[in-house]
Amino acid sequence: MNKAYQELVSLNQEITLLGSAASTLGWDQETYLPKKALGHRADQLSYLSGKIHAMATGKDFQAKLEAAEQAVSDNLTESANLREWRHGFDKSNKLPQELVERSSQSTSLAKAAWEEAREKNEFNLFAPHLEKLVAIAKEKAELWGYEDEPYDALLGCYERGAKTADVAKIFDTFSPQIIETARLAVEKSHGNPARKLSGHFPVEAQQKLNQEVAASIGFDFDGGRIDTTTHPFCTTLGPQDIRLTTRYYEHDFTASLFGVMHEAGHGMYEQGLPMDDFGLPSGSAVSLGIHESQSLLWEAHVGRSQGFWNKWFPRAQELFPQMQDWSVEEFLHTINQAKYSLIRVDADEATYDLHILLRFALERKILNGDIAVADIPAAWNESFQSKFGMQPQTDTEGCLQDIHWAMGGMGYFSTYSLGNLNASQLFNSATKNESVREAFDQADYTPLLKWMRENVHAHGSNYLPQDLMKKATGEGTNPDYHLAHLKRRFLG
Amino acid sequence: MNKAYQELVSLNQEITLLGSAASTLGWDQETYLPKKALGHRADQLSYLSGKIHAMATGKDFQAKLEAAEQAVSDNLTESANLREWRHGFDKSNKLPQELVERSSQSTSLAKAAWEEAREKNEFNLFAPHLEKLVAIAKEKAELWGYEDEPYDALLGCYERGAKTADVAKIFDTFSPQIIETARLAVEKSHGNPARKLSGHFPVEAQQKLNQEVAASIGFDFDGGRIDTTTHPFCTTLGPQDIRLTTRYYEHDFTASLFGVMHEAGHGMYEQGLPMDDFGLPSGSAVSLGIHESQSLLWEAHVGRSQGFWNKWFPRAQELFPQMQDWSVEEFLHTINQAKYSLIRVDADEATYDLHILLRFALERKILNGDIAVADIPAAWNESFQSKFGMQPQTDTEGCLQDIHWAMGGMGYFSTYSLGNLNASQLFNSATKNESVREAFDQADYTPLLKWMRENVHAHGSNYLPQDLMKKATGEGTNPDYHLAHLKRRFLG
Repeated sequence: MNKAYQELVSLNQEITLLGSAASTLGWDQETYLPKKALGHRADQLSYLSGKIHAMATGKDFQAKLEAAEQAVSDNLTESANLREWRHGFDKSNKLPQELVERSSQSTSLAKAAWEEAREKNEFNLFAPHLEKLVAIAKEKAELWGYEDEPYDALLGCYERGAKTADVAKIFDTFSPQIIETARLAVEKSHGNPARKLSGHFPVEAQQKLNQEVAASIGFDFDGGRIDTTTHPFCTTLGPQDIRLTTRYYEHDFTASLFGVMHEAGHGMYEQGLPMDDFGLPSGSAVSLGIHESQSLLWEAHVGRSQGFWNKWFPRAQELFPQMQDWSVEEFLHTINQAKYSLIRVDADEATYDLHILLRFALERKILNGDIAVADIPAAWNESFQSKFGMQPQTDTEGCLQDIHWAMGGMGYFSTYSLGNLNASQLFNSATKNESVREAFDQADYTPLLKWMRENVHAHGSNYLPQDLMKKATGEGTNPDYHLAHLKRRFLG
Repeated sequence: MNKAYQELVSLNQEITLLGSAASTLGWDQETYLPKKALGHRADQLSYLSGKIHAMATGKDFQAKLEAAEQAVSDNLTESANLREWRHGFDKSNKLPQELVERSSQSTSLAKAAWEEAREKNEFNLFAPHLEKLVAIAKEKAELWGYEDEPYDALLGCYERGAKTADVAKIFDTFSPQIIETARLAVEKSHGNPARKLSGHFPVEAQQKLNQEVAASIGFDFDGGRIDTTTHPFCTTLGPQDIRLTTRYYEHDFTASLFGVMHEAGHGMYEQGLPMDDFGLPSGSAVSLGIHESQSLLWEAHVGRSQGFWNKWFPRAQELFPQMQDWSVEEFLHTINQAKYSLIRVDADEATYDLHILLRFALERKILNGDIAVADIPAAWNESFQSKFGMQPQTDTEGCLQDIHWAMGGMGYFSTYSLGNLNASQLFNSATKNESVREAFDQADYTPLLKWMRENVHAHGSNYLPQDLMKKATGEGTNPDYHLAHLKRRFLG
């Protein structure tokens, strides 16, 4: 390792120390912060992010980066780190300060307007803000540059190396088949109604079950923990400090359990990254589409499987006595129902991707100027009708339901479905190995986690997401595995 | 406010943002940090404290301080801030980097050695480390400078403006009287044994009572909270973000309750400081001896009083059914027992100060070279015998019991007794006001808190501690009020 490269590593480690301090403040804000403390916390975070931005985009960074680039390395990790640092540096430096500030101010205002619009079901209150955010997104895309269409530049913020055309090609194959599969699944569930949970599920008992399950699937509680919040997330505060969060509903223990398994999936990815490279690209998760594959693997493939509940249902019955006259089969039928719903975050596995396909197509049209902001509600409802055979009666339950656009997050949604497809594909490859499969059926997930550690986690950002998929499974993201999984689960 | 002063304020506000971020990381470390995350947390804190030190001692600070000092201000707050900034800047800059690092390294090693020595009851294991720390303390005292003796310079770290001779004068008056009062109190308690708590006190019920009591005496939970830790403390993370901590014993609910009242006393002082001056001396607590007066006021004067329990005992009986056949008087007798004990932190109100007087005298002798480190155990035991009429059988229960010396904290102990004396004196002054007194007897503490807000909290560090005491009570710290309080409580 040459000296110039080492100096760049050191600078990035400094940035990481400040960044992980800011993440700790962010975690505290979402879990324990007293109400009146929000103002000072915002001042702290804005100060820290200013310092971090200055360090990551400044002349010192540039000089060190250029010096390190002079000495070409054929080491995989070093060249991956240089590639990612260059990418990030250029991306940040292409935006003028004026635009960064305008963008931040506009999203603050848009978020407040979106909340009011959603509450009052008045899209018009949000429309002028969305116009501004779309204009800003286009401006950014022009400054960052793209090959085919502006969406490329935005998608790349979340899914490194992904091109819109490639994602569109995957989704084009996927779309008719998932629409049909979802239709059949909904039909089948409708014809065979499931028993409903009833009674009171005390938070303490839920916490006990969640903790036992998370530990048993491989989340390391000596390097992480679970706390309570309003909008659950997983955040990394250090190489061995992964914080999961969840929320509890006392009428349904499965919401927090699947939530914890989902966040633990994110958390185990983070716990499996190369620890000594913490904060460097080689020690960081590579993309949202890969991250989401790990959360969905544990939530959906493990958490909703027969083998898992053969082991865990008796424990759930101990903790929740009202479950004692249920059979495992009844329960599995209940947690694997398919039903059309208006709200994305409430959707089941079979219908979830329809929500994403709608948003992906719509976002592209908005950015390409094929549709005006004012026409979004109508376009939303029309597309919803064609996919779900029904449509929302209000924009609150339609195009106003998600916060993403108000946060300036255009290009984000597609990574959810990429995550679904990647999860099924990685699960398929892992369980080709007979010992992984057999252990999985016995609810022993050590071999499955080991496979993910070796084939996904250990690589950090050394490979771009599609190269990682190829290396792990022999091909880029392919929707066949996810469709096969859904058919087995809902139509089998 | 002139421009130079304003620039210095801004720089100090930046330092405060970083400092309060570090405090948040420190709070998390003591409450929620996963075991394996300690290493990264240490790296973060060391990085932040390095940055803070550099900002608070650098040429930019110096230039801004000198410029601000040019324009002499007759504004009380501005001149107090300049006085304290100058004091802090000089104090930090008088220590060479080499000494700071040696001191930090020596205390790390000393702490580990102290733990082992205490566990094995072998003073010799700690002695060579203590020799080094004493030498370092003397070095620092020489560099900082002092008028009469080295102890002055160390005491000043905790009690701004205090001189050893003045404290010694107070303690010399106090000493024979408190020794006699304690003796009588112990004798009286011995002759009239108290009933003992029994049964199980569930943590959840304790938390409920603590929360209700803390809110009722005036701690603002919208600007603070209570969490669980091993060694309870109160820390300030922002102008409206005060975190109390406590620990629970399931055989005795009073430990966590009095602990919370103590920490809430610290917390209410912090909540009462001028919010807009957060992080400036004018918005910061003035000394440990004043801070401790506030915690002891609520723990001892309020928490162990008849009026308080007239109101709260029925609630305690609801939460802890095993208390239902107790009378308030029985309970008050139990929580106000005097007994000689070897360990300072277990001591009751009547005997606590004896532990401090011993340490103060011993520390002075050590620093003046009147006693060698090797002779500390014998000196400790001899002094203990003269004050308590008994002595420890082991050094673990004697001179090895406290961590302070191993942390390099010589000069700290005396502030505990100053806190006791100040608490009684401030309480006496406040309750001279008949409406404060009457409300106090009815367990309504709004007027008492208001008096403290106006006479103590609101002044931040505008006045030095003894000036603050004079302004609030008409005289400097005077032990008479504390002696009178103890006599009323234990001998009345």
